Amino acid sequence: MTVDCSSWAQDQRERVEAALAEWVSADAPAGLGVAMRYAALGGGKRLRALLVLAAAEAVRGNADAALRAACAVELIHAYSLVHDDMPCMDNDVLRRGKPTVHVQFGEAQALLAGDALQARAFECLLPDGPQVPAAMQAALARLLARAAGAQGMAGGQAIDLASVGKPLTEAELRQMHQLKTGALLQASVAMGVACAPQALPAAAQAALHDFGAAVGLAFQVVDDILDVTGDSAALGKTAGKDAQADKPTYVSLLGLAPARALADRLLGQAHEALDACGLPDTTRLRALADQLVNRSQ
Amino acid sequence: MTVDCSSWAQDQRERVEAALAEWVSADAPAGLGVAMRYAALGGGKRLRALLVLAAAEAVRGNADAALRAACAVELIHAYSLVHDDMPCMDNDVLRRGKPTVHVQFGEAQALLAGDALQARAFECLLPDGPQVPAAMQAALARLLARAAGAQGMAGGQAIDLASVGKPLTEAELRQMHQLKTGALLQASVAMGVACAPQALPAAAQAALHDFGAAVGLAFQVVDDILDVTGDSAALGKTAGKDAQADKPTYVSLLGLAPARALADRLLGQAHEALDACGLPDTTRLRALADQLVNRSQ
Repeated sequence: MTVDCSSWAQDQRERVEAALAEWVSADAPAGLGVAMRYAALGGGKRLRALLVLAAAEAVRGNADAALRAACAVELIHAYSLVHDDMPCMDNDVLRRGKPTVHVQFGEAQALLAGDALQARAFECLLPDGPQVPAAMQAALARLLARAAGAQGMAGGQAIDLASVGKPLTEAELRQMHQLKTGALLQASVAMGVACAPQALPAAAQAALHDFGAAVGLAFQVVDDILDVTGDSAALGKTAGKDAQADKPTYVSLLGLAPARALADRLLGQAHEALDACGLPDTTRLRALADQLVNRSQ
Repeated sequence: MTVDCSSWAQDQRERVEAALAEWVSADAPAGLGVAMRYAALGGGKRLRALLVLAAAEAVRGNADAALRAACAVELIHAYSLVHDDMPCMDNDVLRRGKPTVHVQFGEAQALLAGDALQARAFECLLPDGPQVPAAMQAALARLLARAAGAQGMAGGQAIDLASVGKPLTEAELRQMHQLKTGALLQASVAMGVACAPQALPAAAQAALHDFGAAVGLAFQVVDDILDVTGDSAALGKTAGKDAQADKPTYVSLLGLAPARALADRLLGQAHEALDACGLPDTTRLRALADQLVNRSQ
């Protein structure tokens, strides 16, 4: 049964948006704050933030920590898009229906805005006050740093870079996506879980880890599908970009229907993991996974 | 009296180098680790690391935390150099006597290597074990995130970018440098201090804060002087670059002799701050400040 979480999701998006608007200040020097806000605010599905908040709700986590974690993953995601769009990477000019940051503010400012957004993500997680226990702050920042770095998102982008025009096996493609997009999506779930007042039983942790992994990979498979079937206006970015750039995708490797079947299989795995985790209420997590796999943009 | 700290400094540099070599692994995907190591290892004066370690020694700080903090500030510094050298920023081809990262590995890999080094810096500070207390981990990561971000180093770089070819007042130049280089140098001292087993008295904290500020600014003034008086071979980077790029510097604003006098005055302030801090042994910090102001490269 699919539960509709759209009203909850809309409320949470608004909370995240308001918190980001407060935490990414326009008053950073020399227009840097303006570029950072342009990159970080007012757009996006906020899927990562919703995963954090849904996971935190499932474990009855510290609400302040969860909101900070939700914003932090979005800031990392935003910085990665800014850098990814730059001419030396994907050279994209359109993002969420707007000119990309380097088109709007110049390459140098885009580089700096991305750099500063990454630092801001960590600042968000490390408030200088009693509202989030130090051990929780450290755990959250640790998860985020790992997911963002060389063995996570940045490593996945390096594989992506190296793989243009090269045939990849499904295993290689999977590794690329697990790092490039999967790591941060999986960290979003793990960070929500890390907001729990006490550590969860190992079995629950493992199940939620599996949930995050399945959802993370499913997201990318669907992304590859939408790159072929979607249109630029609905996606808010240039469709067909991957095929144009001769990048290997699940669709180019498996074909459209098998890619769709894989996404559904991964959704099934995500459901099973939630059934196994033993937490009383995983409704939101389940609904998010459904939404993510069945999205059209 | 100037105490020679060269043998201590050499020993510490070797410790830092060994730790960085271990923590920045070559096995990150698709050559990313190789580019990161190229950027982070085997070069540099490691002044920031030495400031961390000297400050930690002065407060009898947690040695493991101090070594991690020393490496973390060097990783942030290394990432900033990689991005700063890129064509859209300073477009420099020579760094520490070697081709810059983007010349060696391409722009996209340089962008990613910088991004991943920033994440690695935070990972370094957040080990998943008992060796560094969680509160200390969080405090160190908080200081680093602030110093690296929009109200620190990245903000200073944005001012730098915006100020090419523009006349700046001394106050504006000072703000730029306080952020661009000063923030991380000052954070280095603060992070060393944050390795103390207990919080220091407020007066000692304030004095060490002043020491960090004076040393941070003095460093940049001397950098500006060396850009005019040094030669590329000794500096390991292109001398005269700032003047060529029509960037405002302390030398272009004040003249060479007054810039030198300012550096000496700041060194005096650093000494006074150490006298005022009330810690039993600040020999190393004092020697480092002397070395930094009287350096020839």
